[in-house]
Amino acid sequence: MNITQRYQFSLALLTDMYQLTMAQGYWKKGLAEQEAVFHMYFRNNPFKGGYSVCAGLEDAVDLLANFHFSNNDLSYLGSLKGSQGQNLFEESFLAYLKDLKFTCEVDAIPEGTVVFPNQPLLRIKGPILQCQLLETPLLTILNFQTLVATKAARIVDAAQGDQVIEFGMRRAQGPDGGLSAARAAFIGGVGATSNLLAGQLFQMPVKGTHAHSWVMSYKSEEEAFSAYADVFPHDSVFLVDTYNTLEGIKKAIAVGRKMREQGAELKGIRLDSGDLAYLSIEGRKLLDEAGFPNVSIVASNDLDEHLIQSLKIQGARIDTWGIGTKLVTAFDQPALGGVYKLAALRAPGGEWEYKLKLSEQLVKISTPGILQVRRFYKNNTMVGDMIYSETMVPADSPTMVHPNDPTQQKNFPQDCDHEDLLVPIFRAGKCVYSSPALPEIQERTKKQLHLLHETNRRLLNPHTYKVGLEEQLHAKKMALILQLRQGEKQGQE
Amino acid sequence: MNITQRYQFSLALLTDMYQLTMAQGYWKKGLAEQEAVFHMYFRNNPFKGGYSVCAGLEDAVDLLANFHFSNNDLSYLGSLKGSQGQNLFEESFLAYLKDLKFTCEVDAIPEGTVVFPNQPLLRIKGPILQCQLLETPLLTILNFQTLVATKAARIVDAAQGDQVIEFGMRRAQGPDGGLSAARAAFIGGVGATSNLLAGQLFQMPVKGTHAHSWVMSYKSEEEAFSAYADVFPHDSVFLVDTYNTLEGIKKAIAVGRKMREQGAELKGIRLDSGDLAYLSIEGRKLLDEAGFPNVSIVASNDLDEHLIQSLKIQGARIDTWGIGTKLVTAFDQPALGGVYKLAALRAPGGEWEYKLKLSEQLVKISTPGILQVRRFYKNNTMVGDMIYSETMVPADSPTMVHPNDPTQQKNFPQDCDHEDLLVPIFRAGKCVYSSPALPEIQERTKKQLHLLHETNRRLLNPHTYKVGLEEQLHAKKMALILQLRQGEKQGQE
Repeated sequence: MNITQRYQFSLALLTDMYQLTMAQGYWKKGLAEQEAVFHMYFRNNPFKGGYSVCAGLEDAVDLLANFHFSNNDLSYLGSLKGSQGQNLFEESFLAYLKDLKFTCEVDAIPEGTVVFPNQPLLRIKGPILQCQLLETPLLTILNFQTLVATKAARIVDAAQGDQVIEFGMRRAQGPDGGLSAARAAFIGGVGATSNLLAGQLFQMPVKGTHAHSWVMSYKSEEEAFSAYADVFPHDSVFLVDTYNTLEGIKKAIAVGRKMREQGAELKGIRLDSGDLAYLSIEGRKLLDEAGFPNVSIVASNDLDEHLIQSLKIQGARIDTWGIGTKLVTAFDQPALGGVYKLAALRAPGGEWEYKLKLSEQLVKISTPGILQVRRFYKNNTMVGDMIYSETMVPADSPTMVHPNDPTQQKNFPQDCDHEDLLVPIFRAGKCVYSSPALPEIQERTKKQLHLLHETNRRLLNPHTYKVGLEEQLHAKKMALILQLRQGEKQGQE
Repeated sequence: MNITQRYQFSLALLTDMYQLTMAQGYWKKGLAEQEAVFHMYFRNNPFKGGYSVCAGLEDAVDLLANFHFSNNDLSYLGSLKGSQGQNLFEESFLAYLKDLKFTCEVDAIPEGTVVFPNQPLLRIKGPILQCQLLETPLLTILNFQTLVATKAARIVDAAQGDQVIEFGMRRAQGPDGGLSAARAAFIGGVGATSNLLAGQLFQMPVKGTHAHSWVMSYKSEEEAFSAYADVFPHDSVFLVDTYNTLEGIKKAIAVGRKMREQGAELKGIRLDSGDLAYLSIEGRKLLDEAGFPNVSIVASNDLDEHLIQSLKIQGARIDTWGIGTKLVTAFDQPALGGVYKLAALRAPGGEWEYKLKLSEQLVKISTPGILQVRRFYKNNTMVGDMIYSETMVPADSPTMVHPNDPTQQKNFPQDCDHEDLLVPIFRAGKCVYSSPALPEIQERTKKQLHLLHETNRRLLNPHTYKVGLEEQLHAKKMALILQLRQGEKQGQE
């Protein structure tokens, strides 16, 4: 179930106030139909990592396809007052919004694709008024889901093929924070969620057995395990750390033996506290010696990719990782910081004018143009991504320039395979893209990560993947910066 | 508009899978009607601070008041399979859920109250099956809103009476992350949001003017400002840093002069990059010298309470603070870590049995009982909070014991004023509480913070506010821990 179907109201007001004031400004000045190009991109990979996994496009498409102002939205806007008590929005502007239809052209990188800083994940071309209104919700959706899909991919990578389950609903940032996180975590490679609503809405596998309170509600741990096994003879994972973990494991084994006598089989045990390396190693020994080599060990307790890696190095015998808070809130960096910048503009019937936002730091200056990303491969490995403008066709054997250090350049020989990452999503306001099912997106992420060199996937201090600007685009950007700085100087004189 | 009204579906499935498997377990074992007491509490104030501000109760109340399983929910549960391909949930259990009505008793601390670690923010008493199902959504709602209200209170405190506006939608964790954050930020003291949907749903003030793209879409900054002023002659705040901030301010002044000639008045300028201390001081000088002492300076750019404090110390001349990412994601600690623990249990018609969850760390052992929080005051200042169990009446001049260090005790003389913080919310499943309007809750937060000693409000290294266990409760808890540890030892022999 997509985002607009989840809410009781149109999501047209899920945006910043200034998008509406600017919209009235463009409309009033007769500039609403000026054609603009905006790109959504981020400036750094999260978590000090070497890559990101883009996610959220399906919800973004749904938002755009259902974009409209309801009467309720318009009457709210009509009620807003300015500082003099006057109506902030004019009746005739509200009438314009009432009839407003989404007419833009959108291109975007499919979900589950490995992406890098400065690349447009989404490009929107159309009337500036529409592009502007959509900035905030597009950023909300793509920023958060990309962040969590990336976190999940790192965790799954650290787990080296073990199963990973997302457990984070109770610590998520609001109900939808938990739902969006469950979806994005699945895209990143997580196998299941504990969140039933996410399971239902997104048709994802759900998992879970019992909590400490189940054990505490019985006179003894053994009695609690037996009772649970009676109800779920083939699906019991006993939580063994309510009182003393190793004793808990022995009781799980005792109950496991009784289950066998009745034709049932214990599935697993879960550790939720203490020294997970020590306890899992000792627990594995106890289980194996007792004839339970197939009982799996599930571990949880504020885990993330670094703890998983450390536990693996210590020889922990954990089969399934339950990850909550650190995954669903992307704890060590809870926002991606993606931006949405104007890159070109033309009056109806006119020529494209390239646009950029200056900054004292070169890294914060946006790239102008109508941008596309060309990815090059050699021996089935990604070797570099070149950002180019569709208005300036790249050479057959193109050279790209480092966006922040023009002395670094890279040439791609003609025999490199390549593909363009942004694909058509909307044409003249009509959706021309069909979102793949979630398992297909998860599979795409997996394949994409295999195309990435392992040094780029390192959790800390990864090798930097090469992303540059096609040389004509780079030259154009530099000329435009100099021209704008010249304008500044003249302004100061 | 409350949480259940926002979504298209019942929120009964907004919970962890294991709550439902345990529920089936209790039901199958004839234990569903055992009466339980659970408390929701957290173990540490977030952000290394000295206090928290509780929030989210209105949404929690709404969730409980509307709790039911829809046919759609039940058919989803009926479709879930166990590891042998069998149905995980029995038909007759689903029939039980279909008829399930919320019948619990709930007490909670009103929103906008200053709260501390280990205090129950919410206590629920009723059939264990119901209490268990509600654990996850109650935690999701109360954890996140309390976290953001606390962050907001710290930011507002640092701003020393300046206006603070929440700008964070685009970096929020999903749409609802942004909406819940806007509500909670308002409770914490923020004056307005940029989020129109939050404005509409929660009847909060909304603010915002224009973005860089507005400026970039015009030939010159001056032209852009003039055009905006034409449309909003009384509500223009110009963003002055698109090209060069001080030049931008001069252009804003030039346009401000023209506005005056037409009977309009520039309201403010906004700085969104660069050295905010230097630029605001220089900007103030330029504005004052030009005869614009009432034009306010708005600043934004990844601000939080520490940056505001630092800018204040540097003499920055900022009147309004726009806070986005760091507020709505609670960036430096994006989860509160609140828990929900079983504390007492009784069979129908039986005696209360006290329950606790052991841990090797004393700080992680839960407190048993049916808990209430008594707050003591002296000279209009909070002097300590005593957690007691309603089953053991405190003395008139009670002594409390530090929860993790029994050598620290505190006695409250009989002449101390006191009040009990948890108030009745539900009785026999019926709501008996009427949530105050949002501005009243905000006002409560403000008053509460005035009752707290300033050393407890310090942003870093605050004085620890005293919270203890009433002495009989402390003795009971210690005895229960020893008894459970004894049981462990016997198990090991």
